[in-house]
Formats: sequence, C-alpha cells, structure tokens
Amino acid sequence: MPDPIAYAQAHREEHLAELIEFLCIPSVSTQPEHKADVDHAAQWLAGRLTAVGLENVRVIQTAGHPLVYADWLHAPDAPTVLVYGHYDVQPAEPFDLWQSPPFVPTVRDNYLYARGASDDKGQVYLHVKAVEALLRSHGRLPLNVKFIIEGEEEMGGASLSAFIPQNRDLLAADVALVSDTMMVSPEQPAIVYGLRGMCYVLLDIQGPKRDLHSGSFGGGVDNPLNVLGHIIAKLKDETGHVLIPGFYDQVRPLTPEERDILAHYPFDEVGWLAETGAPQPWGEPAFTLVERLGARPTLDVHGVIGGYTGAGGKTVLPAHAHAKFSMRLVPDQDPAQIRALVQAYVASIMPPTVTYQLHFQGSAPASLSDLHHPAMAAAKSACQATFGREPVFMREGGSIPVVAEFQTILGLETVLLGFGLQSDQIHAPNERFYLPNYFRGIETSIRFLQAYGRAPG
Amino acid sequence: MPDPIAYAQAHREEHLAELIEFLCIPSVSTQPEHKADVDHAAQWLAGRLTAVGLENVRVIQTAGHPLVYADWLHAPDAPTVLVYGHYDVQPAEPFDLWQSPPFVPTVRDNYLYARGASDDKGQVYLHVKAVEALLRSHGRLPLNVKFIIEGEEEMGGASLSAFIPQNRDLLAADVALVSDTMMVSPEQPAIVYGLRGMCYVLLDIQGPKRDLHSGSFGGGVDNPLNVLGHIIAKLKDETGHVLIPGFYDQVRPLTPEERDILAHYPFDEVGWLAETGAPQPWGEPAFTLVERLGARPTLDVHGVIGGYTGAGGKTVLPAHAHAKFSMRLVPDQDPAQIRALVQAYVASIMPPTVTYQLHFQGSAPASLSDLHHPAMAAAKSACQATFGREPVFMREGGSIPVVAEFQTILGLETVLLGFGLQSDQIHAPNERFYLPNYFRGIETSIRFLQAYGRAPG
Repeated sequence: MPDPIAYAQAHREEHLAELIEFLCIPSVSTQPEHKADVDHAAQWLAGRLTAVGLENVRVIQTAGHPLVYADWLHAPDAPTVLVYGHYDVQPAEPFDLWQSPPFVPTVRDNYLYARGASDDKGQVYLHVKAVEALLRSHGRLPLNVKFIIEGEEEMGGASLSAFIPQNRDLLAADVALVSDTMMVSPEQPAIVYGLRGMCYVLLDIQGPKRDLHSGSFGGGVDNPLNVLGHIIAKLKDETGHVLIPGFYDQVRPLTPEERDILAHYPFDEVGWLAETGAPQPWGEPAFTLVERLGARPTLDVHGVIGGYTGAGGKTVLPAHAHAKFSMRLVPDQDPAQIRALVQAYVASIMPPTVTYQLHFQGSAPASLSDLHHPAMAAAKSACQATFGREPVFMREGGSIPVVAEFQTILGLETVLLGFGLQSDQIHAPNERFYLPNYFRGIETSIRFLQAYGRAPG
Repeated sequence: MPDPIAYAQAHREEHLAELIEFLCIPSVSTQPEHKADVDHAAQWLAGRLTAVGLENVRVIQTAGHPLVYADWLHAPDAPTVLVYGHYDVQPAEPFDLWQSPPFVPTVRDNYLYARGASDDKGQVYLHVKAVEALLRSHGRLPLNVKFIIEGEEEMGGASLSAFIPQNRDLLAADVALVSDTMMVSPEQPAIVYGLRGMCYVLLDIQGPKRDLHSGSFGGGVDNPLNVLGHIIAKLKDETGHVLIPGFYDQVRPLTPEERDILAHYPFDEVGWLAETGAPQPWGEPAFTLVERLGARPTLDVHGVIGGYTGAGGKTVLPAHAHAKFSMRLVPDQDPAQIRALVQAYVASIMPPTVTYQLHFQGSAPASLSDLHHPAMAAAKSACQATFGREPVFMREGGSIPVVAEFQTILGLETVLLGFGLQSDQIHAPNERFYLPNYFRGIETSIRFLQAYGRAPG
C-alpha cells in the first residue's frame, strides 16, 4: 500500500514550489491598496484545495476579506478535524531592511525568506499537502476534515468572528487543528495550550489647529507630543506594571502546578536574549521571564508619529500626535471590559488643553486548552514519530483570536501544533520559515490525522 | 526734491513682483536636496543688492550655506546700521496642508502665501527696497548701511556664528536692524527688546535589534516607544515646569518693572487663543500668559517617530524610537551649560534595557536690548509716522541666535523692528505675509534710516 509519508518526501520540490507561489501574493490585509492581492490569495488557495481532492471548496465573500472553506466528509465513524489558518500577512514595512524583497520568496541556508513564510502561509499550507499525500496514497482520509482559512487574522478577524456563530453546522467538528505557533527549537516540537488575547487601540491627540512656531507659542499652548509622552508613561510603569485601574482584576492567578510546568519549560534565556538583541531582559519582577512572555498581560506601544520627522531640525509645536498600542490579555480578562477601562482611564488622564479620539481595533479573549483531549495524544505521538522526541507544552504570548471563539461558540478544543521558530522574524523584516520543518510539518500532519482517525470517537 | 516715500508707493507692483521671485526659490537650508536652491537664493539676492545701488556686494562661501554682504559707506559723519536677515526658509512639510503650493507665491485677500513670505524673505527684502527708494530719490543714503544676510538661520546659523568673530571690522556698526519679529496686530507696530535662546536636541533610542512580535516578546523585552514616553514625561511636567535638575538656576528673575511693562502689553488673549485653535491656554501657573510666551524658558517636543505608523494595526515591539525636542532659553541661561544638564539628566533617567544617542543641534543664548539706544527713538518715530501710533515694546518667544552674538561679540545693540503677524503661520503650512505691512515696512525702514541718520553720532 502506498505510504503517504513516502509520497510527501518524494514531492518536496513541488510542495516548496507551490508555497513559493503562495508567498508571491502580497496579501496584506490591513492595507487597502492590497485588497486585490488578498482576493487573489483566496482564489489561489481555493484552487489548490480543489486540486488536492478536497470538496465543497468555496470562497465565501464577507464584509471584509473572503473566507476559504473546503471539506472531505466520507468517514462517518471517525472524528472530524477543523483545520484553521490564515492566508493574509502583516505589512512588510520597512522595506529597506529586507535582504531580499518580502514578496520575492528566497531560499538561503535552508530558510525560506518571505512575508508570511512562517505566519501563516507556510504553516497552513503544510496541512493541505498532508491531505494531498493521504488522498493520493490511499484515495481517502482516515477521518473527516474541514478547512476554514481566513484573510483577516492580522487585522482582527472580524469577518470570521461574524461567520462562526451563523455557521455552527458548517464548522461543526470534534477538534480544531491550528498551526500558527512556534516550536522551542528546530528539533524540539511544542504544543501550545494557552494563548494571550488582545485589545488594540489607536489614540489621536489634537492640540492647536495647526503646527505653531514653538518660539512664539511655546509656554502658552500645550504640546500634543509632550501630552502623549505623559499618557504613555501613565499607561504602564517602567517595571512593566500596567497602570490602568482594574486592569488586573480578572486575571486568573497562575496555579502552583502551572508555575511548576512553566518553570520546567526548556527556555534558553541566553539564546533568546541574543535573538532579541536587547541589552537585557525586562519586565514584572514578581514573575519569571517565561511567565511574563506567555502568562502575564502586558501593554506595548506599536507606533508613534507626530510633528516634524524629516531631516534636521524644525521648531514646531505640532497640531497632532498619534499612537497605536495594544494590551495582551490572559484568562479571564474580558476584552470588552478592558476596552471600557481604557476609555475611562484615558478620559481621566487626558488634560483639557487638548482633544483626543480613541479607536478600538481588533480584540480577542485569551484561551486555555484541555490537555486531556484525545487529539492532544494524537498530536503528541505524531511529533514523537516525526521529530524523535515528545513535544513540550507551553503558553504562547501571541494572540489567535479565533481559538477562543472556537472554544466558546463551537465548543471546540484546539490543538495548537506549530512549526515556526522564535527566530522566524514574523511581523518584522526578513520573515522566514525553516524549510526542514515545513517538510516535517507535512509529515506530522499526516501522522496526526492518522492517529486521531484511530482514536475512540 | 524727490520723495523716497512717494517713490516706494509708486513702485509697489515691482516691489511685490520681486518678492514673489525671491519666494519662488525653495531655499530650505536643513534639507540637503535643496542645497542648489539655497545657493541660487544667495546669488539672486546679491544681484538685487547690486541693482539697487549697494556696493561691495559679495556672496561669501562658508562651510555651510553662503552669506550675502553689501554696503554703502559714503556718510562719514553719520552712524552705520547693520541690516541683518536670512534668505533660508523652514521645510514646507506637510505639503498636503498647503492651500497653494509653498513655492508658488499666491496672493489671497491681501496676504501673500508662500514659505518664507514672513520668515524672513519678505521682512529682509523690504529693507533692500527702502535703500532703493532713498538712493533713487536722493542719490545717496542719510547714513552708512551694511547688509549681512545668512542662509542658515533655520538650521542654527553656524556659518555666520563662525564669521562674526573673524570679521569684526567688516561688520562694525553703531546698531543692528533686524526685521524677523512680529507686530501686535496689523495696525499696531512693536519693537522686540528680548528674545529667547534655544538648545535643540535629537534623541534616538534603540531597544531590540529588530522589530519583534509584541505577542511573543511583549512582557520580556523593554519597548523603546514606552521608554520614550517615560523620558518625555520626565523632561517637563504637565504644568510646564521643566524637570531637568539645574535648568532654572541661571534664569534672571523678572523685575517688578518688567512684569509691569509686560502686564500693560495690549495682549488679545481671546484672539490669540482663536488663532492657535487650542482648547485653552496652558503653562506655568505662577506666570502670566505674556510672561510665559516670551520671558520664561520652556521645552517642546517637535517630532516623534517610531514603530509602525502606516494604516491599520501592526503588533510590533519596535526596535527604535526617535524624538526631536528643544528648550527655549531666557537670560542668563547658558546653552552650553543647558546641554550638559540635558546630557547628565537623560543619562540618569534612561533605563539599562535600551541604548540611546543624543545629538545636539543649533543652540543660542537669549538676548535683551537697551531700550535707551538712539536707534530705538528713530524706530519709534518711524513707526509713529507710518502707522499713526507708537510701537509697543515686548519680549518675543522665538530665537534669533545672531542677536546675542551681535551683542556679545560686536558690542551692537539690536533694533528688532518686525512686520510679521502671529497669524502668519511661519514654520507651518500656509505661511503668509500681510501685504499692506510689506509696503508700510518699506516706508518705516526709509523713515528709520532718515531719522537715525539725523541722530547725534
């Protein structure tokens, strides 16, 4: 009988070439100028899902970017897996820091460099190739599979969030499988059981109606950039403690068992620090670095602009200041409540010498998965067979908003089986994916589908 | 005998056309791409100085932008006036806020709109036209005149600062005459007797070596934009008090007489506030608004940039944050000492989780002029004759670095006789010059030269 693992190994060149084709499409969801590219990526993906033998392939139009759906449902006695991923990517700016253009995928030293290589095109596409290997080898799958792949993950996922509660039957499954997280190291697989949530905020401050001369007006008119500095300083103190009243009220305390699990996580602090290039680690003194990175809420300013930012000096007292910031949330912080706290706090600290507007963007609750679900055992054995070692279980600091929605709306636990690396530079210039783990990811996915197909229903 | 005032009034169209020609040259001194335009402006000006009958016209090359010199020295028994101004202009960004292009001078409602219209091309050129009117009418001037016009005022004036101590004879005079300040209102002339100094600083903060994903790294790596917020908040408190230790140590206290003069300054607070568009005035509670605007030191952030500033959201923990800020100084604050205080303070408040660099740009001491100099009386009578009312005496919050150098190096008092208005939007989009005061400026300059020429030598 043909072996799907052998099939996958024999077709690596094609599997790489197709991923490169996928990565050439600049599907930047947050930038309106890329709308056509986002559509193109959805159509391209639907074509590939059809080509591997999946059925009911649909590009579903939404108020935002399309969703891509496909399934294979011919194993009535076996469980159903819902594979989730996203085909949209982060903006690629600043372009000048890329060693090769972000949308010209380039292989260097076993890494494939391109925007989206790791987050998430490479990781979602490996499941498509696993299905292909199984269908080409056996003519059928060992269980039922549904794919739901969205195009708004990097902008908050509003369309999928609206779609899920209205399409419970379409998306019904026994477990969700998501590859959008990271391994511990190139050889050490990991299963993420906790994800942070988030609440993203845009703050615009307006002072004078136009830029003023700082000599003529300085001392008599408040300066939006000075104000913004005070606001930022009041959002979070220098030790990492968020100063918004009530921010920590709903934080579920870490249990002694979980602190113990996290204390045994094989974290290479020296390597991690070198990877960041920061002078030293930083953060809340009462928590370990591993806890701070995944199990504690935080607040980061993502971008600030205002006044004159060209070459040389210009003595303006600027009319505007703009900042983007977000809070990463943990169970059981409620994004809607956090949003209300931010609104009230900013109102309380903003001086009457300026006006301002807050715009809330995507928000998502945090999630924690059940470690005893049968799919967890299948994922563990698939990792063991492919990598020769058991995965470690960890909390991840990033946010995959849909995972909490799967849990609360569809009642689905999620297996977060990721093949990325901390050094993949996702959301940054020179994003990359370690190619050996693209291929091992395909094999792990094949073995997961086989093992979970044999699990008691 | 021909009347120079009648000559000026008969030649208004030519005088306006020439100013428009001057304003078409984008002589932005701080932007390297405009170097050729700056040179062009100097050559153009030299041509005009020659054309009106001035002598010894020279374009003097420097390490930076050229100086333009000219003189007329055939009145041995009369005093000598050194006319100073600058032919360089501020950057015109943001271009999209200009109603007409910044270097396409456009007249609307008696205002001439263009970058440099008020600061300072219009104001320096009116003295050239006054000399023309006198020479064309009388064939001679009532006193000796020297012009020194620089091209680096908006970038700190380093070349003229270096030139002055090495050219004391060339620049020797009895008084300096400068038009680079503002009137109280279109009908109310003013003589500025005090100017603030300045110290301009660029601050670059570096955290991680590249932009990081704020989910994966947030809570474990310090964020340069959050750090910058804390630094800005620590530079000046929300009431306008600068927090740099020692900053106020050398500030000469306002005398009761001067507080009285400033209390009687005809300040239209309602009109001023409407002009700014700010929700309310702001600043040190212990000082009046007029005092805060001219007689108190302050600190303003001029520009900030860092992280992702494009459309939508991006969850980066950015590698860099950049800020430009300056302090406006008053007598007797020493810019070099202030610079040392800033250096020490920033070092003391910068956390070890980031690295940073400070770059100091142009600095200048403040200045105060002698109200009893005979040229002050000549300026007063020239204003009275032209505008029908006496000028008020005021302190101006802006900086004209060279005025302090004229005082300390050449021993020259300066008459600051400006024809701009607060509403001229200098250093901002839609800079403009009120045309009736361009023409009255020419007449005031003629009358000043005549009155001071009759003064006891």
